[in-house]
Amino acid sequence: MLAPKFDADGLVTCVATDATSGDLLMVAHMNAEALKRTVETGEAWYFSRSRKALWRKGESSGHGQRVVEMRVDCDQDAVWIKVEQQGPGACHTGRRSCFYRVVPLRQQGAVALQFRDAEKTFNPADTYGNSG
Amino acid sequence: MLAPKFDADGLVTCVATDATSGDLLMVAHMNAEALKRTVETGEAWYFSRSRKALWRKGESSGHGQRVVEMRVDCDQDAVWIKVEQQGPGACHTGRRSCFYRVVPLRQQGAVALQFRDAEKTFNPADTYGNSG
Repeated sequence: MLAPKFDADGLVTCVATDATSGDLLMVAHMNAEALKRTVETGEAWYFSRSRKALWRKGESSGHGQRVVEMRVDCDQDAVWIKVEQQGPGACHTGRRSCFYRVVPLRQQGAVALQFRDAEKTFNPADTYGNSG
Repeated sequence: MLAPKFDADGLVTCVATDATSGDLLMVAHMNAEALKRTVETGEAWYFSRSRKALWRKGESSGHGQRVVEMRVDCDQDAVWIKVEQQGPGACHTGRRSCFYRVVPLRQQGAVALQFRDAEKTFNPADTYGNSG
């Protein structure tokens, strides 16, 4: 049975990948209510740690996520959703994926990130307006 | 620059996918030292929340992970590593991936999980011995 192991803050980690390309889109969190709504509706709901609020992905941007498949890991503290990303992207910076920077490996000291697949697919100012 | 945003426990989330198939293998955590060692060596190091210990993936199982590419997300509280998984699998239950159970969607109440891609690829008792 589904018996999520929520952390001290009442959250599990959620990994969202693109159901078509397989690319990692974003990593976020779900509390019990977000998980329940996602299971019941097949639309991705999350819990924002910064805003301390439940949110349906796309409620302000219009870029919702239809869940094609959900999986849970061995110890049930993480879920994986394969989604149909609606609209041009998942990231609030205006990109398809939140993971648009590479960390170069096998080096020491300060690490300069490298942009990769970082083209903007939408203008966040237009999408989110003044609410950021 | 790489400037990870560690949580209150000093951790970032790490998502490991198979560099060849793209499949999600596991979700774990890294503290500053684990992240530093992963960047420097190109081998996956994690921090176990349950054991409160740094560990190199494969140090007890032999099933290490060579990192092909590392990325960081927009707010730098999650990293994504694409890995060459050594040996038959990443999951301590004896499977290739930790995500071997599907959560059926669009239903209410108690949810029965469904096994998917759940065949055992190794015997954990043989691999980990009495240490579990």
